[in-house]
Amino acid sequence: MSANATDKNSASRLRLAVLGSGNGSNMQAILEAISNGSLAAEITCVISDVADAGILARAKAASIPQHYISAEPFRTKLDGEAEKQYLNVLNDYDTELIVLAGFMRIIKAGMLRAFQHRIINIHPSLLPAFPGLHAWRQALDYGTKITGCTVHFVDEGTDTGPIIIQRHVPVLDDDTIESLHARIQQQEHIAYPEALRLISENKLRVKNRRVLINNS
Amino acid sequence: MSANATDKNSASRLRLAVLGSGNGSNMQAILEAISNGSLAAEITCVISDVADAGILARAKAASIPQHYISAEPFRTKLDGEAEKQYLNVLNDYDTELIVLAGFMRIIKAGMLRAFQHRIINIHPSLLPAFPGLHAWRQALDYGTKITGCTVHFVDEGTDTGPIIIQRHVPVLDDDTIESLHARIQQQEHIAYPEALRLISENKLRVKNRRVLINNS
Repeated sequence: MSANATDKNSASRLRLAVLGSGNGSNMQAILEAISNGSLAAEITCVISDVADAGILARAKAASIPQHYISAEPFRTKLDGEAEKQYLNVLNDYDTELIVLAGFMRIIKAGMLRAFQHRIINIHPSLLPAFPGLHAWRQALDYGTKITGCTVHFVDEGTDTGPIIIQRHVPVLDDDTIESLHARIQQQEHIAYPEALRLISENKLRVKNRRVLINNS
Repeated sequence: MSANATDKNSASRLRLAVLGSGNGSNMQAILEAISNGSLAAEITCVISDVADAGILARAKAASIPQHYISAEPFRTKLDGEAEKQYLNVLNDYDTELIVLAGFMRIIKAGMLRAFQHRIINIHPSLLPAFPGLHAWRQALDYGTKITGCTVHFVDEGTDTGPIIIQRHVPVLDDDTIESLHARIQQQEHIAYPEALRLISENKLRVKNRRVLINNS
């Protein structure tokens, strides 16, 4: 953390870097939690692997430094030279926590090592149910009656890391994939800032796979 | 259904057979729903593969015909001669719906064919998460924050059939496997009678894998 003796607030704010490939609505929810005072953090930069991603436009609108960094030639992972470029930028901003917000690439060993236990993700299901893509569609097709969202630490698996917070969403008989996805996103926008608040207040400890809230 | 012109109630009651290997608390919850008038059904017989199972004692106490039928030599499934004996008893009671209540054996093709879409089970997790044994322990070990219970139709898989009802249960930081199991069971005792009520009122239809409530 780049502590600045003249700015106590800045010194105590968790320095977040947000990585996203899409619209960035979760980043927006995090920004709102910061601006309403419920989350002592700052988004120091936004990086996207998609040049015209909405998340970059949102960052620009909020005056947050934004970077498009291609992750080619890989299609589904962040690896090799691209990973190095991402890490360079993340280090430039003294990133304390990497926040994946719709980042559609698998994080590989280089970044996991550099940010051990300091990368979190949000997934649109109650993991371990429905990992992978289009989890809301998977839930609807399976015929599950309750789904939701999961904030978790990122590990080497796909959506397998220790779970910080889950929020549930009922599946309704007349749900479409759009209506269900929208209701899950509403819960994501509550869950992600709350998980970040717990991390920023240093309240979490991980015991085996369980993430517990430290009240001491 | 064995309609009896002198007993309208009996004619409209769904004839259940309960199969269980354990304590029978779910059967007790079903009995209570029947006696308080919220479920138009009757438990015509209880069958167990465990000679001293609590479910048989509960059935006896409630004056419900009870049968111990060994499922040997198999250890984890109901098959072969044992399956035939079970089917004979089920047919003797004009069974309309088989209700698995802690029955610790896999139902095989013979019974599935004889009672197609007429066998239901309750499972102590939000399926498809944590199928199989000790689902509450699996949930705790995985570190999931929300689990629950699932009532589903039985198909040839293990805990894979179409889902009728789910109820969620939060996992607490200080939960033990016992405390979590107990809270899941409380929800089971609500979910199972409710699912039976929907079936008894002929309100369910299955579309692909989704079980929908028919309001027409």
